[in-house]
Amino acid sequence: MSRAYNFSPGPAALPESVLRQAQQDMLEWGDAGASIVEISHRGPEFMAVAAAAEADLRTLLSIPDDYAVLFLPGGATTQQALLPLNFAAPGQRADYVLTGHWGKTATRQAHAYVDLNVAASSEAGGFRDIPQAGEWRLSPDAAYVHVTANETIHGVEFRPAAAGGHAFPDTGDVPLFADFSSSIASEPLDISRFGAIYAGAQKNLGPVGIAVVIVRRDLLERAGQPRADIFDYRLQLAAESMLNTPPTWNWYLAGLVFRWMLDEGGVAEFARRNAEKARLLYAAIDGSGGFYRNEVDAAVRSRMNVPFFLADDAHDAAFLDGARAAGLIGLKGHRVLGGMRASIYNAMPVSGVAALVDYMQAFQQRHG
Amino acid sequence: MSRAYNFSPGPAALPESVLRQAQQDMLEWGDAGASIVEISHRGPEFMAVAAAAEADLRTLLSIPDDYAVLFLPGGATTQQALLPLNFAAPGQRADYVLTGHWGKTATRQAHAYVDLNVAASSEAGGFRDIPQAGEWRLSPDAAYVHVTANETIHGVEFRPAAAGGHAFPDTGDVPLFADFSSSIASEPLDISRFGAIYAGAQKNLGPVGIAVVIVRRDLLERAGQPRADIFDYRLQLAAESMLNTPPTWNWYLAGLVFRWMLDEGGVAEFARRNAEKARLLYAAIDGSGGFYRNEVDAAVRSRMNVPFFLADDAHDAAFLDGARAAGLIGLKGHRVLGGMRASIYNAMPVSGVAALVDYMQAFQQRHG
Repeated sequence: MSRAYNFSPGPAALPESVLRQAQQDMLEWGDAGASIVEISHRGPEFMAVAAAAEADLRTLLSIPDDYAVLFLPGGATTQQALLPLNFAAPGQRADYVLTGHWGKTATRQAHAYVDLNVAASSEAGGFRDIPQAGEWRLSPDAAYVHVTANETIHGVEFRPAAAGGHAFPDTGDVPLFADFSSSIASEPLDISRFGAIYAGAQKNLGPVGIAVVIVRRDLLERAGQPRADIFDYRLQLAAESMLNTPPTWNWYLAGLVFRWMLDEGGVAEFARRNAEKARLLYAAIDGSGGFYRNEVDAAVRSRMNVPFFLADDAHDAAFLDGARAAGLIGLKGHRVLGGMRASIYNAMPVSGVAALVDYMQAFQQRHG
Repeated sequence: MSRAYNFSPGPAALPESVLRQAQQDMLEWGDAGASIVEISHRGPEFMAVAAAAEADLRTLLSIPDDYAVLFLPGGATTQQALLPLNFAAPGQRADYVLTGHWGKTATRQAHAYVDLNVAASSEAGGFRDIPQAGEWRLSPDAAYVHVTANETIHGVEFRPAAAGGHAFPDTGDVPLFADFSSSIASEPLDISRFGAIYAGAQKNLGPVGIAVVIVRRDLLERAGQPRADIFDYRLQLAAESMLNTPPTWNWYLAGLVFRWMLDEGGVAEFARRNAEKARLLYAAIDGSGGFYRNEVDAAVRSRMNVPFFLADDAHDAAFLDGARAAGLIGLKGHRVLGGMRASIYNAMPVSGVAALVDYMQAFQQRHG
């Protein structure tokens, strides 16, 4: 088949123009005499790529100067282990708010290092909402509060209170750390409200294999815990994220995606498109008379990941097969929830969601 | 310029046929409707790629069945931190033998976790040889002994005693761990002599951003130290190296390199080529009447990384500029040593080394 509309949750669809550029660059990078994947990370050619990527990301996300940016190998899960190692004293209290699967995953990376307090959780209700602020049992002496900005599996997202959603809390002097893997760069964000945000690149920022950490510089003065040099954010920053050989191709490809997002109009434009895509898809689900359903509290529904279920799951296989035949892939839900999930990150055009909605309505007419 | 002979130490040259395949696959993977970098790591298409990569690596390296193979994000440095976390009790003795820069780096990843004993070191002599076996102060109760099979910067390699070199030691019941980043798959190896070997892929195995760990399965029963799930080799093995989203493109590209090595004749054939390349280059250096020099004890000279110096370092810049003009790149020495370094991994053909030798002789005639 030719290239389909790809609703994969991550690794996820990349802009076709980015892939074509990578294809063109594959054998030779400028006049380097070699591919970008074959040259030294310390040479002038790659250092320019790395510097441009950081500058473009700073522009794209309006990152304040008092925040450092790290590009590190691996994904968000590794950062979930490095956050307590770098920012909590051994055994110090750290607060975690659980609004889905990935918040729980974060606790499994941290519990060996901190006195982990689940300050709030919506697990008892199946992770379909965000605990009300009054129910959060925050610790005044916590090293940090950790939240998941958008839950990729459960489809729950912190949203501006002005839009009727559950906003990020004000944690006072305790820094707020947030996993933004599946929603970074999807709308404007006031980074100054966070101590650190981090994201695996494979949803909105580029290919899997590299993560971005944006951290307030003064926090890097914390002693943290005894740890390997390679786990030390301060040393990575001093080495410009090159304490060891970084994943250069992944970094380069992320840089192409940053440039593409800027060329398309930046996060304000993607916020507009993402709102439109989410509106279209949730309207189709809610307007299906129960044939499709999404179970998340409407105030905190994710704009990026839309899990939905067919009323009769005996139709699931036919739905997926028909979708594929219609050029719509990556719709199978995560095994934790089953059902379907449409991930509609920045690289998914409005036309892709419109095609999905058309297919859903046609499928319902045949099977409803 | 067109593609040059690339002597970079890593990221290093890849086979052109592999890059052409990656170029061809960049927009669509088979009939997946998306690129290999855009599809789920848990889907049938990528699972097949991952399984083939492991099977091919097992064939290539003759990996015994009682050894597990992990494909993990990042490079060798991260594994240097994970080895003590997985295989040493907190504060347990661990022996390190230092034969160059990377052995020292390994200690900086481990010292926070173990009672680190430098059992032997050739640092006082500038890392130009390997300490004689009788000088190693090994600890009978050590969790493991760590060595660096080949030192990428200093150009020192453990070599078979039969060839007059310094063989890997017999460490009895204490498992021997070895960093094989820059020499894995360069010649046949009896893996059963090791508790674990590991390698960042970016020299002989593929692109940067992924590492291979080959570990004797019984060692995985050790308790190790309190740690994040993502740092736990047992959990990674149970999840088929997919405890988090793995660097799929890097894994895929490594798989293409494994297949290329098998198609070329396997490690026996590369051993033959690598011996020929090393013979050519060291003969040119040693036969230059002192215009070029390599300072490593001849018995332990690396077949992969050949550091060399011009008698008059005022010629260094002219040497590098002329090399580039002759289509020979990546020859600048590491900042730790200065001078020159030619890295001649599996993907470097004999013709590339012959071209380098011709250039060196011509340069000497002009400047000698």
